[in-house]
Amino acid sequence: MTTMRDRDTQDGEAPELPLNLRSDNVTGIAPPILDAILRANRGSMASYGADERTLGLGERFSELFGKRCAVQPLGTGTATNALAMSLLTPPWGAIVCSAVSHVHDSECGAAELFTGGAKVTPLPEADGKLAPETLERHLAKAGWGRTSEVQPAVLAIAQATERGTVYQPDEIAALAAIARRHGLKVHLDGARFANALAALGCAPADLTWKAGVDVLSFGGTKNGCLAAEAIVMFDENLAEPLRFRARKAGHIFSKMRFVSAQLEAYVENGLWLRLAAHANAMAARVATGLEEIEGARLLHPVDINEVFMALPDAAREGLKADGFGFYDRGAGTVRLVTAFDTRPEQVDAFVASARRHAAGV
Amino acid sequence: MTTMRDRDTQDGEAPELPLNLRSDNVTGIAPPILDAILRANRGSMASYGADERTLGLGERFSELFGKRCAVQPLGTGTATNALAMSLLTPPWGAIVCSAVSHVHDSECGAAELFTGGAKVTPLPEADGKLAPETLERHLAKAGWGRTSEVQPAVLAIAQATERGTVYQPDEIAALAAIARRHGLKVHLDGARFANALAALGCAPADLTWKAGVDVLSFGGTKNGCLAAEAIVMFDENLAEPLRFRARKAGHIFSKMRFVSAQLEAYVENGLWLRLAAHANAMAARVATGLEEIEGARLLHPVDINEVFMALPDAAREGLKADGFGFYDRGAGTVRLVTAFDTRPEQVDAFVASARRHAAGV
Amino acid sequence: MTTMRDRDTQDGEAPELPLNLRSDNVTGIAPPILDAILRANRGSMASYGADERTLGLGERFSELFGKRCAVQPLGTGTATNALAMSLLTPPWGAIVCSAVSHVHDSECGAAELFTGGAKVTPLPEADGKLAPETLERHLAKAGWGRTSEVQPAVLAIAQATERGTVYQPDEIAALAAIARRHGLKVHLDGARFANALAALGCAPADLTWKAGVDVLSFGGTKNGCLAAEAIVMFDENLAEPLRFRARKAGHIFSKMRFVSAQLEAYVENGLWLRLAAHANAMAARVATGLEEIEGARLLHPVDINEVFMALPDAAREGLKADGFGFYDRGAGTVRLVTAFDTRPEQVDAFVASARRHAAGV
Amino acid sequence: MTTMRDRDTQDGEAPELPLNLRSDNVTGIAPPILDAILRANRGSMASYGADERTLGLGERFSELFGKRCAVQPLGTGTATNALAMSLLTPPWGAIVCSAVSHVHDSECGAAELFTGGAKVTPLPEADGKLAPETLERHLAKAGWGRTSEVQPAVLAIAQATERGTVYQPDEIAALAAIARRHGLKVHLDGARFANALAALGCAPADLTWKAGVDVLSFGGTKNGCLAAEAIVMFDENLAEPLRFRARKAGHIFSKMRFVSAQLEAYVENGLWLRLAAHANAMAARVATGLEEIEGARLLHPVDINEVFMALPDAAREGLKADGFGFYDRGAGTVRLVTAFDTRPEQVDAFVASARRHAAGV
Repeated sequence: MTTMRDRDTQDGEAPELPLNLRSDNVTGIAPPILDAILRANRGSMASYGADERTLGLGERFSELFGKRCAVQPLGTGTATNALAMSLLTPPWGAIVCSAVSHVHDSECGAAELFTGGAKVTPLPEADGKLAPETLERHLAKAGWGRTSEVQPAVLAIAQATERGTVYQPDEIAALAAIARRHGLKVHLDGARFANALAALGCAPADLTWKAGVDVLSFGGTKNGCLAAEAIVMFDENLAEPLRFRARKAGHIFSKMRFVSAQLEAYVENGLWLRLAAHANAMAARVATGLEEIEGARLLHPVDINEVFMALPDAAREGLKADGFGFYDRGAGTVRLVTAFDTRPEQVDAFVASARRHAAGV
Repeated sequence: MTTMRDRDTQDGEAPELPLNLRSDNVTGIAPPILDAILRANRGSMASYGADERTLGLGERFSELFGKRCAVQPLGTGTATNALAMSLLTPPWGAIVCSAVSHVHDSECGAAELFTGGAKVTPLPEADGKLAPETLERHLAKAGWGRTSEVQPAVLAIAQATERGTVYQPDEIAALAAIARRHGLKVHLDGARFANALAALGCAPADLTWKAGVDVLSFGGTKNGCLAAEAIVMFDENLAEPLRFRARKAGHIFSKMRFVSAQLEAYVENGLWLRLAAHANAMAARVATGLEEIEGARLLHPVDINEVFMALPDAAREGLKADGFGFYDRGAGTVRLVTAFDTRPEQVDAFVASARRHAAGV
Repeated sequence: MTTMRDRDTQDGEAPELPLNLRSDNVTGIAPPILDAILRANRGSMASYGADERTLGLGERFSELFGKRCAVQPLGTGTATNALAMSLLTPPWGAIVCSAVSHVHDSECGAAELFTGGAKVTPLPEADGKLAPETLERHLAKAGWGRTSEVQPAVLAIAQATERGTVYQPDEIAALAAIARRHGLKVHLDGARFANALAALGCAPADLTWKAGVDVLSFGGTKNGCLAAEAIVMFDENLAEPLRFRARKAGHIFSKMRFVSAQLEAYVENGLWLRLAAHANAMAARVATGLEEIEGARLLHPVDINEVFMALPDAAREGLKADGFGFYDRGAGTVRLVTAFDTRPEQVDAFVASARRHAAGV
Repeated sequence: MTTMRDRDTQDGEAPELPLNLRSDNVTGIAPPILDAILRANRGSMASYGADERTLGLGERFSELFGKRCAVQPLGTGTATNALAMSLLTPPWGAIVCSAVSHVHDSECGAAELFTGGAKVTPLPEADGKLAPETLERHLAKAGWGRTSEVQPAVLAIAQATERGTVYQPDEIAALAAIARRHGLKVHLDGARFANALAALGCAPADLTWKAGVDVLSFGGTKNGCLAAEAIVMFDENLAEPLRFRARKAGHIFSKMRFVSAQLEAYVENGLWLRLAAHANAMAARVATGLEEIEGARLLHPVDINEVFMALPDAAREGLKADGFGFYDRGAGTVRLVTAFDTRPEQVDAFVASARRHAAGV
């Protein structure tokens, strides 16, 4: 077990399979997180979040963010986002977001369910990012006060975005300022928050409350946890309604300590940022390696651990034939997602395969 | 790790704290389950339940139940029950259950949420069990076809019950027959299904589809899992709607393999039944030990791992003073819940403390 | 048309059918209300409630109740009650009411739908009325703050009750005081509010805000309107959320002026109280007439326009044979509901029929 | 009263105000409809739709549509559309419609509420109409079977459209065929169904079940009713679930006969088509009159009773100054909606005002 504590990202055994870059949720558990689960498995403990570990999370996250905040551990990103929305919008509200946002197109309408029928309104984006003008224009022409129309109530942005890019702190602040001026609350979907932070090198506060964010979906699962997400509320008054909403939706684990233990370990001594930085570096390595292929082309900047590329047919098909995993998005494009446990030599093998096939060797 | 595989219920270390009988969810993870989680942490795997482990559960549970069935792994009992209900009743339906059922009074109205507003109708019970006459009488006077009234749509019974008792297979069959004659579907809340099975010594089929049960909430968490429950559907057509309902409610884990691995290990080679039988035996030991106390009295038969008792004030207060944990239900009564990891010597210490304090020593 | 203005309750034609006492909603439109509809049918008018008539209702009802209040006209009693609930309870709340309340057993779970899954909790009653001790006891043992349990959020009482009785103003105040002390809001279902007022001879304020009521379902339909109900909010801040909730639920009529015109006419110059007083008097006449039958027995006091009685089989069957309408509640009991348009001679014919048949003539 | 029966569209009194073309719901009640309400106000009648008038609607509409169908009378268009959707899609479904559809942008998210959180997906349109290629392309790339995405379940088209245009029967059939091939149900929003029929001169069947429509929102309110809409179901099995859904949503009137009486009269002897044809003719007169203004331009074909135009500022502002009513849509454009009661001389005065002001006179 000692070795697990020493090494964050990989255990001692060589993986059997070629690299799978389909998503960062095809990964397992990072050793320090697993170790925390094992350590939490001692003695009895109060259930449903009344245990000391869970109760201590507020303090830990308050330190982390440099501001008093409330934290609710959860098990999935969809629950985290949708329950967060239910705190921020009435049933007749609209959740304004980018057209490629996860909240809009990848959560089976969970936000609509948990809000009692609010509408998710997708706006045009570029590289996954919403421009201030786009938001301003949309809000300017909203049917404020007209009951025939849903009322914009939440701005939901993702950091990092669903296209592997990041907002600068002042970009978030600019969007949030517009939103707040119109009375909207601001939600940040941080399924890959650690990757964004690692990329930007700024403080958690800079991307959240200091920039005008009210509620953060804090993700851990994609970055080394078994299943650990959290809603971080910079308005502590939201904590009590959330406790009830989460329980009513069946999202409070009886053995909550095991989720909280993951979150504790995740943010301890910067583990989360080290894991994310590694994943980011591996994506850069992938991008650099593939860019040299004739006909290959990056579709978006590679800010974090995701690479969106156009790749020649030969490369794509060849990679598949060699057993590599990735998401073929159609029209000659792919999404490649590295993770905390991606190894350089695996990346190199991936790149080599693509190059070889592209070259028709 | 070898020791873990050999011993189901306890690891090698002595627990530090006095016995905590507050609930069986104050426990940790049984070693074989933890071992399964560790084994599942190898290599990458398809996410959101598309992995082999999850896909194989249908086959495993079909063998277990002697009938083709579909299985959806989930993380909490409340999600399991409430999503199951959403499959069985329209929004204008009623869920008929005992007045002490968990679905009614301990899930914060989750069934009401996930069904789109169905009503939960509690009926009088004895020892946690619904009598056929009670059900028959209620259904006979229901306002069938009158749109002013919700229409009984589901019979929800718990096995074991919330009072630590079990239904005999023919008792379930009698209730289910009445329900079905009136067009209701039958749901079995099996949060402690293993304990009931272990107590009765019958086959899983005898308590479920053979007795007329349509859908089972299959619990693992209270009996040694970290977080592993499942909806078992004896009508496989329910599987597809459930996949979408569960996803929309944020209940599908991205790293589902870790939940499925728990369920696999849980039912492998009878582990679940051994864990439950042990817990049951410990409850019997508690009951036997406490019954001798002057003024102590069992409130319900002790069929499984729960003991409901009236205990003299001195015993109750003394146990608390000694640091033992249990649920003080008020009016001089307690609930004591043993678990897979309760040790005989812990029980004996508990009993000794109660006796000593009751005797005024 | 002159005659219509002069006579509130009946038009000039003799009714063809024997008296129908099944409910007060089997009636048509009182002439002054119909006249108001005709008058409203002049010229064009802003739609969806932006017309002057609708906008003026707040002022009118504020005068009527002696306090600034907001008013939302609606078309059905179920919509009125359920939307009112949605203003007063979060999804994890409980609506506490009597076991025979309309909100609980006659609205197909509308409250559960519009509140996002709140629970309706029926408490024991006598003559349709909730006793303060019953409420106090229930609230004292509620699981306050425990997320496993819904949290009492609304006290819903009916005035008049579903058993044809009325609360005295101080009885409402006593219940409301208990509710408010525990943080509940107070709702009054006034489907037959006019009948209660007419019976008590007190001011509308005495039964509502002065007694601690937050929101009133104000009924007009049963007492002479075509379809006109209203939510009266003594906290004006509720008006804006309600406008959106009602619109989202499809409850805002485009030609709202026709609903508002009914409400205007209904409360003008005491029409509503005259109509209700007449209905009440007719019920008293029914009760007095039937009580003399051997074996007949009143089941509840006859405070308003409803008579609950046990009637001998011969009387019940004879009335049916003679073509009279009423609600046979089984077990030898009936509900007889008079209305604004019930005529004394009709009542006398009804009573005579019952007596004749009971006497075996 | 005799005059009312003789004349469909206008009563004898001259309107006081300049013409209001803001919407067709600023109008009152057409005399024959009002007459039907008066006639229905005789004697007592069974409530909540159990009356003969309501029960007879199925037969009447079956004749009208040349096919057995079920009919549910309702009071608002939003309720009609949203309840219809709730019959056709599960909570995880998507309602595919044009980007300017009423269901999407003018009903405050009612469809999202009544379906339990389904998503409304707007697609690009031209003149308010959806092109088959647009639908085909969208459905081809839907994430069928992927639980992360809502599943297209309903095609919702409006006839006439929200831009005052109509689909030819074969255009509806083409769209419906695509929808059905992908397993979608087809809904037709007929808030102005009569206007479309009158414009096309075809049979109701041609625009509905013969073209592949499953459920029709049948509108009466905009075309002369007080408040009368209906859901027409060509699959009669939908009637029972709808009865319960409508009741649970508070949409069943206790004095339903008054809604049903409107519908009866509306379709009797072609009244609805005459009223609509008149409204359509008035819109044509408006369009013809305004088109001659320099700088005026029709934005969409004028198929029914709606005119969408660009109008010079002088004309727009002058009309307002003269007291005429219309919807100023911004950017120099207006919507002008004529109705069953619009008089030619009113139109001529409207046109004259616009011309005069445009000419700077």
